Amino acid sequence: MLNKLTFGIFFTASLLLTSGADAVSLQSHLKIEPISWWAGMHNPRLQLMLHGDKIGSLKVDIEGDDVTILETKRTDNPNYLFITLNLADAKAQTLALSLLDDQKVKYRFNYSLHERAKGSAMRQGFSNKDVIYLITPDRFVNGDLSNDNQIEMLEQIDRNDKDGRHGGDIQGIENSLDYLEKLGVTQLWINPLLENNQQKYSYHGYSTTDHYRIDPRFGSNETYKELVKKANDKGIGIIQDIIVNHIGSNHWWMQDLPSSTWINGIHTSQDKQPINYTSHRRTTVQDPYAVSEDHSEFVDGWFVDTMPDLNQTDPLLATYLIQNSIWWVEYANLSGIREDTYSYADKAFLSDWSKAIMTEYPNFNIVGEEWTANPITVSYWQAGKVNRDGYISYLPSLMDFPLYEVMLKALTQAESWDKGFISLYEMMANDVIYANPSNLVLFEGNHDTNRLYSLMNEDLNLFKMAMTYTLTSNRIPQLFYGTEVLMTSPKEGRHDGEVRSDFPGGWPTDKINALTGRGLTEKQREAQGFVKTLLNFRKNSAAIHKGSLKHYVPIDGVYVYFRSFNDETLMVVMNKNDKPVQLTSKRFKAQLDGFNRATEILTDTQIAISSAEGASITVPTRGVLLLSLTD
Amino acid sequence: MLNKLTFGIFFTASLLLTSGADAVSLQSHLKIEPISWWAGMHNPRLQLMLHGDKIGSLKVDIEGDDVTILETKRTDNPNYLFITLNLADAKAQTLALSLLDDQKVKYRFNYSLHERAKGSAMRQGFSNKDVIYLITPDRFVNGDLSNDNQIEMLEQIDRNDKDGRHGGDIQGIENSLDYLEKLGVTQLWINPLLENNQQKYSYHGYSTTDHYRIDPRFGSNETYKELVKKANDKGIGIIQDIIVNHIGSNHWWMQDLPSSTWINGIHTSQDKQPINYTSHRRTTVQDPYAVSEDHSEFVDGWFVDTMPDLNQTDPLLATYLIQNSIWWVEYANLSGIREDTYSYADKAFLSDWSKAIMTEYPNFNIVGEEWTANPITVSYWQAGKVNRDGYISYLPSLMDFPLYEVMLKALTQAESWDKGFISLYEMMANDVIYANPSNLVLFEGNHDTNRLYSLMNEDLNLFKMAMTYTLTSNRIPQLFYGTEVLMTSPKEGRHDGEVRSDFPGGWPTDKINALTGRGLTEKQREAQGFVKTLLNFRKNSAAIHKGSLKHYVPIDGVYVYFRSFNDETLMVVMNKNDKPVQLTSKRFKAQLDGFNRATEILTDTQIAISSAEGASITVPTRGVLLLSLTD
Repeated sequence: MLNKLTFGIFFTASLLLTSGADAVSLQSHLKIEPISWWAGMHNPRLQLMLHGDKIGSLKVDIEGDDVTILETKRTDNPNYLFITLNLADAKAQTLALSLLDDQKVKYRFNYSLHERAKGSAMRQGFSNKDVIYLITPDRFVNGDLSNDNQIEMLEQIDRNDKDGRHGGDIQGIENSLDYLEKLGVTQLWINPLLENNQQKYSYHGYSTTDHYRIDPRFGSNETYKELVKKANDKGIGIIQDIIVNHIGSNHWWMQDLPSSTWINGIHTSQDKQPINYTSHRRTTVQDPYAVSEDHSEFVDGWFVDTMPDLNQTDPLLATYLIQNSIWWVEYANLSGIREDTYSYADKAFLSDWSKAIMTEYPNFNIVGEEWTANPITVSYWQAGKVNRDGYISYLPSLMDFPLYEVMLKALTQAESWDKGFISLYEMMANDVIYANPSNLVLFEGNHDTNRLYSLMNEDLNLFKMAMTYTLTSNRIPQLFYGTEVLMTSPKEGRHDGEVRSDFPGGWPTDKINALTGRGLTEKQREAQGFVKTLLNFRKNSAAIHKGSLKHYVPIDGVYVYFRSFNDETLMVVMNKNDKPVQLTSKRFKAQLDGFNRATEILTDTQIAISSAEGASITVPTRGVLLLSLTD
Repeated sequence: MLNKLTFGIFFTASLLLTSGADAVSLQSHLKIEPISWWAGMHNPRLQLMLHGDKIGSLKVDIEGDDVTILETKRTDNPNYLFITLNLADAKAQTLALSLLDDQKVKYRFNYSLHERAKGSAMRQGFSNKDVIYLITPDRFVNGDLSNDNQIEMLEQIDRNDKDGRHGGDIQGIENSLDYLEKLGVTQLWINPLLENNQQKYSYHGYSTTDHYRIDPRFGSNETYKELVKKANDKGIGIIQDIIVNHIGSNHWWMQDLPSSTWINGIHTSQDKQPINYTSHRRTTVQDPYAVSEDHSEFVDGWFVDTMPDLNQTDPLLATYLIQNSIWWVEYANLSGIREDTYSYADKAFLSDWSKAIMTEYPNFNIVGEEWTANPITVSYWQAGKVNRDGYISYLPSLMDFPLYEVMLKALTQAESWDKGFISLYEMMANDVIYANPSNLVLFEGNHDTNRLYSLMNEDLNLFKMAMTYTLTSNRIPQLFYGTEVLMTSPKEGRHDGEVRSDFPGGWPTDKINALTGRGLTEKQREAQGFVKTLLNFRKNSAAIHKGSLKHYVPIDGVYVYFRSFNDETLMVVMNKNDKPVQLTSKRFKAQLDGFNRATEILTDTQIAISSAEGASITVPTRGVLLLSLTD
């Protein structure tokens, strides 16, 4: 289908990599986004952004079956045109669009409306049945050494630079699918893969320079799509990391902004306003007493000079971003989205964005990042929450930073009246403020947090408790690559380079290989085995997926909770004491009655269970038990 | 009307002190509670508790106009009878009740139904217009030396014992009304005044031994009623401290429990169950995952051996407690209730209790104590809150412990990204979870907290900020006696004896007298003057009573907020820096526009105001400004 001519690097890049749009033109430098679309979407409207020299004054014509132009919008930049098509009755086809100056055709191009994949709309998003594994792609596995450097990309590989690019890629992830499948992972959240053609510090992926192109150092749109397919074949879904708040300063828009309202803090590239940085004061969004100036300083400020802040109140940009997210779901066959820096974008837009995606894919899942320890702030954004200011969100899930932070403290602080396990116990009571607490994502770490094993003071026992809690609580669990082999980092402050260090075995020269086990220490093997056991048990545990939770006030450094669904009852016991504990069973009579035996899942051992007077359960020193009860 | 015979000490005590019920009997030891009632209450039902030797087997007869017996209930204790009357059509009158054995009258007594005071039902409860002043009556002013020791009371005066009784009383409060009025106080919350005939540590009042009797060491029911009247004449209302959770171990019930279900943890006085102490784990009440055993351990446990825990699920006790609260409102003419240890009582009962009182007095106010730093936990109890578990409360107000604790930290912690004023700023955003945040009571201290001046490191400037915040925030403010003269205490841990030390000038031999000013230090006089100025300004400030609140993200140790209502706009500025600050006005343009001048209320000085480029406001070193803006 690809009938490509060269219209300049922007257009070329899109077409080369996506094969979505067929184009014929009489002039150079025409860019069209989205680069393709589908027939039969729920939303019949499609907004095309066209960028080309002085095209704003041209008239638009279209040839296609049952496709009409609803409206054509122009901005204060004469090089852009926004065309909205009505696809309500359109079948898959190739449309022909013409841009005319009077009667003269100045541009003519084909545009593909594809057939949707079967079941696309009703796809199942990630859920409580899943375990998400977060990969920082540049740092995981370098599966294709040939793509490490790209002549068109500004930053080249330098594995000695902790903030530089190390060469990990999509092929590396694809090569690791067997490992991940056996480990028990069922979803991959991959840090952003879109082109980040920045001078430096581009590896993390949060500075998008092209919304429709996988960074060539990671692979291509096609290899990404192939990864998803191969992962799906192994029962693993892919969650894309999407950023609607900002772009990279080398985004092609920045050379010729679509409008003076596109970016916050800059009116045009000629007439730059001073950049305001975000205050990071997120309570201003929902605080009934905050002044609008403070709110604006939070949402309209830039993160850093290299990340221009998008103005999502611009309806053309809003539609662009919504369509871009849907494009990736549909194109790559995603099972979820992780939305970066959620509250930093315009809140009305976020409502529209989340609603549009969830309307297209009613069973989908999206998890937003709202990085605060305050569950009240987090709860504001979840779909179903009744907010005091009337704000309505359609975002199904959020990262559970409050619970994550309390979990760390609970495990490492000495037990006292109000510290240790009691803080975890009491945090769970705050679940009442969430519309849907069990759809939150609880993580043991991510690319922005220090490494779990380090935070657990390199105590394997505490590490096991943290992992067990993450994986048996009433949340969707998310792990960070390398946690299973005890990757470390400093404990205080931010250390992105160390936190996102290379996965051992991801590079051909690596002596240690976590994928094969070669060179791992005994502790690393023990941890990896532990995670594997837990994840594979979890796969088939309805009690964890959807069971009730009952927990007991922690006493004397021991925390006990039960998960239960139909026939399956699990008892989790954590002992933070530096000695074994004989846990009196009688207190748990209401849960234990009817059971006589249990399998301890983590060690695959059998024990007798009784709630009779005097009966007890032995819990090892700083140990965790995951007991599956049977009669 | 008093036609009293001696029926034993219990009955005698009630009648002697209340003059409510007229009684004639043929036998001794008959006690009737409530000791009187009123015609024309909203709730037409009245439950009488009768206690006497084997009266449970007797038949009840009644003589009175339009009064009928709805039901007579007996318990497993044959010495009690519970009679429910229908007063729907009853006028004020004296009823005659008889208890008969077959046809033989064993007891005959009169019972008074009084006329209600005019406007009683529609009385106005304490509100945002008020400043509440908490008095620990034993420690405030000893106005009647003759009542310090009472032959019938177990504990005698000992002013040298910090946990003993010091002699303060109702007469002392009455004598201080002029002082309090001039200070600007409009409501008095007085720690419990009911009889606490305990062996020791009885001064605090939280161990009720008679629900219908003012402790004779404080005065009498009549002197209490007189205090309220005299206070009311000066525009000061009285808030009674009521405890429904527990009683004192010397309560007359404990000699002969009304039923085996009356008290948690004891079935009968013969067959004592072991006492369980409360776990103090208050999240168990609302935690969706808590087990009922843990909830029960919290609500059914005792505080201490000398405070038996009441079982409010017993409907006879529930009605008793509800009627007792209403009795005091009606009898003494209260303007509010402060309910002790709110969440420790049965939650269904608390709903009934608060509903019953608020139904009788729709404009009344009740503030509950839920001592936790977590606003989610506090918000659960406020009327209007939509709770996940469907729990409905009718309690209009709660003590704002979360805001109090943050206020202290905000003022004393060094400023940083997440400490100092920012914590206060961010806490306010949590107001979204309250059904009615402005009806919460914010206090600068109470009988259970260490003294504000000490907590402010005896820094008069910080003290002034705390007082200004307490008195200008969108809350109902509450002060603790003696704060105005900088009373001190240790800063860490509990020190009830020191915190509740004697108000200077409350005893004839006191060298220092805060009531007259004699012997106060310069700082004390300054503080007292400051409080007086603030309270008296506040009396007429609609902006504080009901104005909007707009606050600005604290920057560089300066926190600014505005209160505004119609023509009145107040600007509060707090500067924690150890140097004066020139505050750039431009940031506050939206609030300042239209104003040119301001009166600084605390120092009664005039300053010019402008939001023009370059204009600023001088804020003194660790200073607070309360600016009333004018054009």
